[in-house]
Amino acid sequence: MRDILPDEVELRDAAVRKIVSVYRAYGFRRIETPGLESLRLLAGSEGGENEKLIFKVMKRGEELESARRAGEDLADLGLRFDLTVPLARYYAENHAKLPDPLKAIQIGPVWRAERPQKGRFRQFTQCDIDVLGLASPLVEIELILATTDALARLGLSDLTVRINDRRLLEIVARHCGFPEAAYGAFFIAFDKLDRLGPEGVVTELSESGHDAQAVRRFSELLPGLNPDKVTLETLRAALPDAGTTDAWASLATIIATANAEIAAGCRVRFDPTLVRGMGYYTGPIFEIASAGYPSSIAGGGRYDRMIGRLLGRDVPASGFSIGFERLISILSERGGVPAAEDAERAERRVALLVDERGDVAAAVRAAKRLRAEGDLVSLEVRRKNVKKQLDDLMTHGFWGHATVEDPTRLPEVKALVRRAEAR
Amino acid sequence: MRDILPDEVELRDAAVRKIVSVYRAYGFRRIETPGLESLRLLAGSEGGENEKLIFKVMKRGEELESARRAGEDLADLGLRFDLTVPLARYYAENHAKLPDPLKAIQIGPVWRAERPQKGRFRQFTQCDIDVLGLASPLVEIELILATTDALARLGLSDLTVRINDRRLLEIVARHCGFPEAAYGAFFIAFDKLDRLGPEGVVTELSESGHDAQAVRRFSELLPGLNPDKVTLETLRAALPDAGTTDAWASLATIIATANAEIAAGCRVRFDPTLVRGMGYYTGPIFEIASAGYPSSIAGGGRYDRMIGRLLGRDVPASGFSIGFERLISILSERGGVPAAEDAERAERRVALLVDERGDVAAAVRAAKRLRAEGDLVSLEVRRKNVKKQLDDLMTHGFWGHATVEDPTRLPEVKALVRRAEAR
Repeated sequence: MRDILPDEVELRDAAVRKIVSVYRAYGFRRIETPGLESLRLLAGSEGGENEKLIFKVMKRGEELESARRAGEDLADLGLRFDLTVPLARYYAENHAKLPDPLKAIQIGPVWRAERPQKGRFRQFTQCDIDVLGLASPLVEIELILATTDALARLGLSDLTVRINDRRLLEIVARHCGFPEAAYGAFFIAFDKLDRLGPEGVVTELSESGHDAQAVRRFSELLPGLNPDKVTLETLRAALPDAGTTDAWASLATIIATANAEIAAGCRVRFDPTLVRGMGYYTGPIFEIASAGYPSSIAGGGRYDRMIGRLLGRDVPASGFSIGFERLISILSERGGVPAAEDAERAERRVALLVDERGDVAAAVRAAKRLRAEGDLVSLEVRRKNVKKQLDDLMTHGFWGHATVEDPTRLPEVKALVRRAEAR
Repeated sequence: MRDILPDEVELRDAAVRKIVSVYRAYGFRRIETPGLESLRLLAGSEGGENEKLIFKVMKRGEELESARRAGEDLADLGLRFDLTVPLARYYAENHAKLPDPLKAIQIGPVWRAERPQKGRFRQFTQCDIDVLGLASPLVEIELILATTDALARLGLSDLTVRINDRRLLEIVARHCGFPEAAYGAFFIAFDKLDRLGPEGVVTELSESGHDAQAVRRFSELLPGLNPDKVTLETLRAALPDAGTTDAWASLATIIATANAEIAAGCRVRFDPTLVRGMGYYTGPIFEIASAGYPSSIAGGGRYDRMIGRLLGRDVPASGFSIGFERLISILSERGGVPAAEDAERAERRVALLVDERGDVAAAVRAAKRLRAEGDLVSLEVRRKNVKKQLDDLMTHGFWGHATVEDPTRLPEVKALVRRAEAR
């Protein structure tokens, strides 16, 4: 976990403002859930590896004592490890008071007890949009357009959205002859294609005891899955037992419609090798990469069966999550968030130095006048070493400084500030 | 803990935006600390009752096992119960990279394991400003002006800032003849004046075994502490052993200067009966009440010795905290946050209904065009019962709705939206 210094908080705030303003334009609204959830909910959520990383909170008072005596679990709450599991619980509990479909923005901290390492924090921010209650390709179209639009407005260009569908992955598995019970393990190995290459994946599948004939059929199919060459049509032709799923038609609609309206320089591309880790996906899955950055900046997919386990009836759901910490590190390398197109009036940060034994009231009055004109004004007590003090102020982002002792000198002071700024 | 629905999140966001914009105008900048801190830090922080309400997080993996075997504490982290203790740690660790003085804004969740009750939550938001590194009445003047300015811009008028100084409370205690070891207990009883009345406080002091003569002297002094009648001068005259403290002069400067520049309809008032609970205060203390609301909306004070316990050298510090949840419940009763003086263009929320088997691409295109004009547009799949669907949309804050099937009809659609909005 880490502290965040003022410059970075300002960058994060600016990014959040921009993202929220784009998502709101697409009809999404912010919701909030608490940081703590019941451990039972978190531990039974198909969260995969993340469930092992839950920070557990101890019971309190008499409950803790009786749990100790009875040798029962000492923890009853946990810090959320993502925003999707809490969203499912939120929907299950509040759906009667919510719009249907719910189009939710969630931006907030999550916690994972990972071993600390460079660029990985045990508390970090997630930034998700989800649509709950609607099973239609329109949902994925809007998720993709909104997310690419937000990233493009943050200055990330040349975005590629890779898209696939869990149902196609299942058709591939069935086509190769993997038994249904082995699908999960097959997907996990397939997901390593980027890292291991085709031969590595085939070797891993063989060595982990999968059916040899299925592995051979998969290795024959693999060259045809190359995203540079494959299309929905060629893949469908290669999979004669493609079944009655509407995944093909739905993917075709999503790709064509999103490509027609996507931000300039961006594209959506079918990639039958995209798998994504989480077990809960049931339909389209997608990731965004920006040219020049190796790993993906955002990822998501449809998870139509998660809410059903809490609510007792399935509710269609699909979401897209921006890797907020990664985004901030990219924006930080690039020097910040691009200025708004509508060019808000630039803020001036002014430090007013006042002699503490001088006319403090006049300084307060002067500050008030500058603030009324829109300046950010910090009143500072003048130190003996004024030169060092002024240098320090400049280091910390002050654009100008002025000295106020005599209120009648205010016009001149103002001029000083302006001159400092103009440099 | 509780979930927050979209309308309330929007109110909270608007309040935060307004508060942050005022605080930034006073030269404050946002910082962020993590939700989890070491339990050692939290439990040794003079946090009083709050330390008993810490949510404790269990150790993990091998560390947990070895703690179990050794019969040691099973928890090593805790959720922060306020933003002041983490700020002190933040300053101690990061001061070399921070401006001096540091003028910090903190807005974020804190957790207390209280028994759930109406209006009290176990996770709630705090909203603090603090100035670290400067011992000057200028700090308190700016804290008071910034906080009242922020509240006034949120539509709270007729604000009264009650102010006292811990050093004056000590002079009162000494004057009455309480031994120094009894000051803490005396302040705790004195703090109940609002609730118990003067006689109740005197009875409680007697019954809890304080020196009888000291209690008598205090009961003789009490009528002269009535904030409607007392002034700094009359109190000083009543306390001949007032000592050499600069608390008198400093309070006089704060009150006079802040009163000269405070928002219209607001005032700062000396109140020698103001105590405030926390043991860590060392100088001026203050609270804000709004006419018509019984309890205070904001409180704070100077705590010059807290950082020293972490850093090894004392750093002057003073802060003001807005009771954010209370503020939100007041704003919510009043129907929201007043529109900005500069009247941002009002947002239009539009729902576009599309037949899923119709021209989805045209609907996406239409939505894009409306968004480019600044509308918030939600694409919705048209249901069989359109009338109910439209009613539901209106319930959830949509101002207008329109039906898009044919892109050539877009101008007409736009007109529909405008008509709906004009109603």
